[in-house]
Formats: sequence, structure tokens, C-alpha cells
Amino acid sequence: MSLLVVGSVALDSVTTPLASGDEVLGGSASFFRWWPSLITPVRLVAVVGEDFPAEHIELLRSRGVDLEGLQQAPGRTFRWRGRYLPNFVDRETLDTQLNVFEHFHPRLPARWRDSRYVFLGNIDPQLQLDVLQQVQRPALVGCDTMNFWLREPCLAALKQVLRHTGVLFLNDEEARLLSGQHSLVKAAAAIRLLGVEHVVIKRGDAGAMLFDEGGPFWAPAFPLEHVVDPTGAGDCFAGGFMAYLAHTGDLGLANIRRAMVFGSATASFAVEDFSVDRFRSVTRADLTQRCAEFARLVHFEPVQL
Amino acid sequence: MSLLVVGSVALDSVTTPLASGDEVLGGSASFFRWWPSLITPVRLVAVVGEDFPAEHIELLRSRGVDLEGLQQAPGRTFRWRGRYLPNFVDRETLDTQLNVFEHFHPRLPARWRDSRYVFLGNIDPQLQLDVLQQVQRPALVGCDTMNFWLREPCLAALKQVLRHTGVLFLNDEEARLLSGQHSLVKAAAAIRLLGVEHVVIKRGDAGAMLFDEGGPFWAPAFPLEHVVDPTGAGDCFAGGFMAYLAHTGDLGLANIRRAMVFGSATASFAVEDFSVDRFRSVTRADLTQRCAEFARLVHFEPVQL
Repeated sequence: MSLLVVGSVALDSVTTPLASGDEVLGGSASFFRWWPSLITPVRLVAVVGEDFPAEHIELLRSRGVDLEGLQQAPGRTFRWRGRYLPNFVDRETLDTQLNVFEHFHPRLPARWRDSRYVFLGNIDPQLQLDVLQQVQRPALVGCDTMNFWLREPCLAALKQVLRHTGVLFLNDEEARLLSGQHSLVKAAAAIRLLGVEHVVIKRGDAGAMLFDEGGPFWAPAFPLEHVVDPTGAGDCFAGGFMAYLAHTGDLGLANIRRAMVFGSATASFAVEDFSVDRFRSVTRADLTQRCAEFARLVHFEPVQL
Repeated sequence: MSLLVVGSVALDSVTTPLASGDEVLGGSASFFRWWPSLITPVRLVAVVGEDFPAEHIELLRSRGVDLEGLQQAPGRTFRWRGRYLPNFVDRETLDTQLNVFEHFHPRLPARWRDSRYVFLGNIDPQLQLDVLQQVQRPALVGCDTMNFWLREPCLAALKQVLRHTGVLFLNDEEARLLSGQHSLVKAAAAIRLLGVEHVVIKRGDAGAMLFDEGGPFWAPAFPLEHVVDPTGAGDCFAGGFMAYLAHTGDLGLANIRRAMVFGSATASFAVEDFSVDRFRSVTRADLTQRCAEFARLVHFEPVQL
């Protein structure tokens, strides 16, 4: 099944303790769209400027990303410049230029209105609502957001989005901000009351937690020898998660947990190299293999006294 | 099998965002010794001052802790005062008075020299070495430490301790400091080269990771609705871990993983109430039950594409 992805495409300039690069392929949709194409067709709705390199377009197309919804607008592409601190977790934004992204209005090609799996990347909740009005009967809506949208005047629109959201991806700080609760257990419960069926709390190098009818589930971050660039790890996680569900077409609780693990596996590859470089070599077999390693990472036999 | 515990006993004054208390039972051995007594006999080697409340002694004795190795020295008991920040993870030390602990020399009663399970709490590595010289043929030595001992002139003695250490407990910062490696995978590998068979890296509210022959294992921290006081959670983890091994007498890799889960369960109860208060009501059945909940927390079915 196709996965519709709406989000940002950017040219990132990133410095990590181990690597740096100027104007590499970035943005929430950019990281997201890449991985799903390994296991499921992707329909991308985003905007780039006139300066967006043709090679990036070609790369996406070659990976099976349908680009009919990619707008090319007069002006420059969204740019972000940031630097990671030595712990590879905290980062500082040095520069953000929205450019063409500032006036982005997602428009779905007519034939995409029947999309069953929809991922709303981290953009203005009003735009997320616009997208929801353009799709007919999605089986699952995934939504990403950030602290900026968690206060008025944006919060009201976000709450409308959440009423249609099956899976919400946010980090622990954002979960606390949205719910007013410090305990993540309580925060997730409060967010579920807003209409979200599955709350996924991303916790960086501690992994990701799922809260739904099936009780809490924790997919730790895969322990890696080499972390080169954590940029977009959260987006890759969401990408793997949504793609797994679109690919399998199974929204049962057990499969949602599998999607958590697949998302973690996806993210774990992403951070092993700079920007999207690691994507170029990873195969389906690698992903399946890492999921099996995840199973060993948390396996233990029953504890008896 | 008995578990020999050597460490500090303190009177703690702690403020957390939800509670505070003055001169409550604290110290690494204090938190440690409490839990093991639920499942295994404990032999405690520590020092307290003349001012140490008789009720604390009585409480320990009533839980089956053998106090023959508890020295009562002229002077005041070790005191620590600290405050947790709103995130319940970071804390600041406001005051430390070593008092009688400053001149502590652990002396084992003769009949304890045959102890098979030994836990060296976080004290001067030179004292940890002294203890090792007093035990005959331990089956397993567990060792806790902290950043203070990870530099010269203490480091040389610590490295001697590590050559006899089966399980080393330390946090991520300490693992990085000791190994000079940022990646925890690499850090653990370097520490294993120092002679430690099982490296346990405690990661606060992210849980604890085990690195040994069996490959990496991650026991997440149990997600709790109420965290009241995280003081001593790491000690309780180590306590549960060591007690489980002493109780079962099985040092196989699979059982070491179970001990990680039992330690996590122990710690998860500890933080639910202030100081050692939660210990008063917890039963073996509660511990077993929480271990089963841990199994559900990380359970997923095989991921296939």
C-alpha cells in the first residue's frame, strides 16, 4: 500500500563531532521518504526552491518515490544549519531560512486522495488539517509535531488534527508540554484522551516508547559502535514505523509493536553515516537482520524466585 | 546463599519535587541491603556513628540483615544533603559530611570470610581491595564505583579491583570516563578488557544495559505513574541484581539477564516512595509480578517483511 508523506525538504548544513557537510539533503520529509521506499511506495508532498539540485530529485525518483506532489516554487529551498554537541544528542540551531517553505500549501494530486496511509510531517497544524481535508478515508494517520506548535494560536488546530490521528510521534519534552504531566505514563494517558490511539514518545538514544490499548512498550535504541550523524533519526523512526504498517496493512496491536521495532531499526542505520549516505547501501535483509538483533537485545527468560 | 555487602550507611536529607525528608536512612549499602533481605540473607559491613538511630538498626535486623560487621564508631554518622531538579534525574549535592565514614576500614567477621557473593559498594578502591583480601574464594564479586575514583591516584587501585570483578556497575558518564570512549558499546568492550566479565551501565530513567559474552542486553526502566524519590535507585538496582544471583546460585548468561530485570524491578519499587518507605510493603510476589510486566514491556513478535 502507498504511503503519503507531507513535510519539509531542506538543504541541511550539519556539523557533528565526527563529520560535517554543507547543503546535504535534509528536512523531515526528506529523511522520512527515503526509507519507506525500501519496502513501500511513497507519495511525497513537499516544496523545494529553484535551486534544489537535480541530482537529489533523481535519487528520490530512482528509489521509487512518486514526486507528482513535489512543488518547485520560485525562490530558494528551506535551509537549516546546526551543530551537534559532543554527546551526539543535544544540538544547537545556528540558522534557519524557511525560504519557499514559508508559503508552502500542500496540494495533493487528485489520484492521491484515496491514500490509506498518511504521514503528516512536522509542519503548521493548519497545513496538516488542509491535508486531512484532501484525503478521503485514510486507514491510518501518523502525525509528527514539535514544541513550536504546542502553544496558542497553533494548539487549537493541532488538537483538531489529533482527533484524526492514529499515531502521534513526539519527544518526551513535547509530551510533557502538551499534557502538562511530568510522568510519561500520565502524559501519554492524557494525550490519548485527545483522540490519539497510539502515542509514541521518542527518547533519543534511549529509544522510543509506545502507549496504547496494549499497555506500555519500549523499543530501546540499538546500541551502536559508530554514531556519525543523528540528524533525522526521529524522522527515520517515524518513516520506518509508518512504512511497515503501510506495507503489512495490519493495524493490530501486535503489529504496531513490530512497527516500533522496524522504526528503531531504520533509525539505527540512519545515524551510522552522514546525512542520507547510509541509505544508499542498506537492504531489506539488513533491516530484517537488525530487527532480529533487537529481539536478542531485550530477550530474557521468565524470572522466578 | 548469603550476600556480603560493603558500603556506606548515611543519614540523608533529600528534597525531590514531590517530597522531602531530613536524616532518613541512606547511603549505598543502606539502599542495597534492604532489598536483598527479601530474597537472600545479607551480611552488612559498614560504619555508623554514635548518633545512628536505634530504630534503623532494629528495622534492618527485623528484615534479616546480619549486622555483625556493622561498626559503631565514636563520632557522627555520614551525612548527605541533596536536591533533585524538576526532571527527577539531575540532582545537586548541597552538603557532604563524611564523619565516621572518613576513617572506615572494613573488617569482616571471621565466619564471613567464606562469603561466595560479595558486593563492593561505592567506596575507596583501596578499601575494596582490603575486602577482597579478606574473602577466600568468592563465586562473584560485584563492584560499584563513581567518577571520583576514576582518576589517579585512585585509578590504579580500582584497576586492581576490576581484575577480580565479575560485574561492574557504573553509569554512562563513568563508563566513558573510565574507557575514554564515547560509544557505550566501545566503552563496555574496553572495560571488559580490564578483566570485568559483565559490564552493567546504568542509565537512570532509560534503564540499564549489560555487555558480556551474551551480547548487549537492555533492561529499560519500568515506566511509572508516580516517581517520588530517585535517591538510591542505582544502589537498589545493584542490590536486586546481586541478590538474585546469590539466591539462585546460577551465574550463566541467561540468569545474568534475569538478574538485570530483577534489579530493574527492585529499583522501580524504590523510587515510588520516599527514602526506604516503599520497601516496607513490597513482597516477593510484587517483585515477581513486576518482572512479568517487564517481559510485556519489551515483548514483540518477529518482524518479517
